[in-house]
Amino acid sequence: MPSSLQPPDPAYQQRVQNSFRQQAVMQTLGARLLGVQSGQVEIQLPYQRAHTQQHGFLHAGIVTTILDSACGYAAFSLMPADAEVLSIEFKLNMLAPARGEQLIAIGQVIKSGRTVTVCHGDAYMLIDGQRKAVAHMVGTMMSVRGRADLTSQA
Amino acid sequence: MPSSLQPPDPAYQQRVQNSFRQQAVMQTLGARLLGVQSGQVEIQLPYQRAHTQQHGFLHAGIVTTILDSACGYAAFSLMPADAEVLSIEFKLNMLAPARGEQLIAIGQVIKSGRTVTVCHGDAYMLIDGQRKAVAHMVGTMMSVRGRADLTSQA
Amino acid sequence: MPSSLQPPDPAYQQRVQNSFRQQAVMQTLGARLLGVQSGQVEIQLPYQRAHTQQHGFLHAGIVTTILDSACGYAAFSLMPADAEVLSIEFKLNMLAPARGEQLIAIGQVIKSGRTVTVCHGDAYMLIDGQRKAVAHMVGTMMSVRGRADLTSQA
Amino acid sequence: MPSSLQPPDPAYQQRVQNSFRQQAVMQTLGARLLGVQSGQVEIQLPYQRAHTQQHGFLHAGIVTTILDSACGYAAFSLMPADAEVLSIEFKLNMLAPARGEQLIAIGQVIKSGRTVTVCHGDAYMLIDGQRKAVAHMVGTMMSVRGRADLTSQA
Repeated sequence: MPSSLQPPDPAYQQRVQNSFRQQAVMQTLGARLLGVQSGQVEIQLPYQRAHTQQHGFLHAGIVTTILDSACGYAAFSLMPADAEVLSIEFKLNMLAPARGEQLIAIGQVIKSGRTVTVCHGDAYMLIDGQRKAVAHMVGTMMSVRGRADLTSQA
Repeated sequence: MPSSLQPPDPAYQQRVQNSFRQQAVMQTLGARLLGVQSGQVEIQLPYQRAHTQQHGFLHAGIVTTILDSACGYAAFSLMPADAEVLSIEFKLNMLAPARGEQLIAIGQVIKSGRTVTVCHGDAYMLIDGQRKAVAHMVGTMMSVRGRADLTSQA
Repeated sequence: MPSSLQPPDPAYQQRVQNSFRQQAVMQTLGARLLGVQSGQVEIQLPYQRAHTQQHGFLHAGIVTTILDSACGYAAFSLMPADAEVLSIEFKLNMLAPARGEQLIAIGQVIKSGRTVTVCHGDAYMLIDGQRKAVAHMVGTMMSVRGRADLTSQA
Repeated sequence: MPSSLQPPDPAYQQRVQNSFRQQAVMQTLGARLLGVQSGQVEIQLPYQRAHTQQHGFLHAGIVTTILDSACGYAAFSLMPADAEVLSIEFKLNMLAPARGEQLIAIGQVIKSGRTVTVCHGDAYMLIDGQRKAVAHMVGTMMSVRGRADLTSQA
């Protein structure tokens, strides 16, 4: 469906990896960047009791955090080298309780535009080597340039 | 707008407080339950560099985590004593970068139904004592009874 | 991704067709039910100037109307014979201006549950025989039984 | 909550009225523009059997159509004279079945930005002179300038 998945920045993988390292929350939670392709990004988060809601499932907001980064970086992979990415909005549907060993979140670009990029993301829990779908996201990401407050914090 | 804000469980405040204590992620992040009223819940999260994205703002997923709990507990405050609450889905709009001293999230019930409750939530950053709106949530919460996997994890 | 696409009602196609005929708005707009499969429904709407917004594109609400029915009936196809379907909520992202000859909306079940079913839908415009993606929906549908106000209006 | 509700175009009411008249679908459905204020727009739609779903309620997509226009024009009222408005995305929650005499939709700006404006909308049915809340929308509108395909179709 994407209108174009040719990244304008050939060094997009490095750029995504650099930015991911600057997301302090990813390290705080223990998330790992598993893969960066043109318009698709995969992030993994080990299940930890410290990130759960009252029934022992990963909190929907933590699932959202990982999916939002996966979607945001999927969008970012198709942006020019001098652009920054911001989440305008997203919607999350929980499909099943998020319990298991690992959360896998895959963000993909649906439509890449000059200013606005639409992405969707799927989150799975790995349970005994099987993937179980736990959440679905659709989000809108914005490409921003020339804003001094959006320089990276490394 | 709410059709009824009379909580069927007179001990709703205690019930919300107990459940909040069982959300391990709230303690991990450092969130505090500021207030519980009938159909309205307020949660506070101090800004920490550890929870930021690449530009030094609180990650949208962390803002979501606090707002989802505020909305979920607003819904929970109006549920019967033997019900559990689960987030079906929510949408978050970011309104401004989430930087400042404290994040304040207020969840409120729009419409309370037997099975489904619709809530909205507003998140502010406290900056020099002033509130700045940073995010808006609308979410759908579900009342669930009699499911053995939804007993609390305390 | 769907947990189960085996419809509990073997006559699900007839049931969807009957209900579609009772949606007065579908006839008013000129929509046609193109296909009903287990967990997937396709609806077509000819472009008409009468349904446009100020730039001559199909109004996003009209695109929504067709996608919501496609998603709702996709969910309905997997419900028991005595259930009714109601839209709880949905989100629409516009991907491109909706102009062309025909709007094609395809609704699909992501996750079918006892009470709640999550669907997504894609809308295309046919332009010179080519499909162009114009909108994406994610929605939550509810299965309802035993409510007297939800008998059909035929 | 809006950061600024001072319309940059003093003739914003006329501009909204002109654009509304160019939305062919508003006339096709029978909608009327009731009021235009700075950052707030109200639209009315009489209940008609022709716009219903299978249970005789106004179809959620028709409710969406009216709310989307109310939200879009609320955003448009705060845009410069040479800007056009497009819906990027919206979410609708149904709160109650939409039956009664008149649908009233009120769109309001939550946050007005240079490119992106966030709005919410409330829809009511008038029943024996009483308002009953039936739907809630949150949407994101975009200000667009200099695109030749977005000139009005009058």
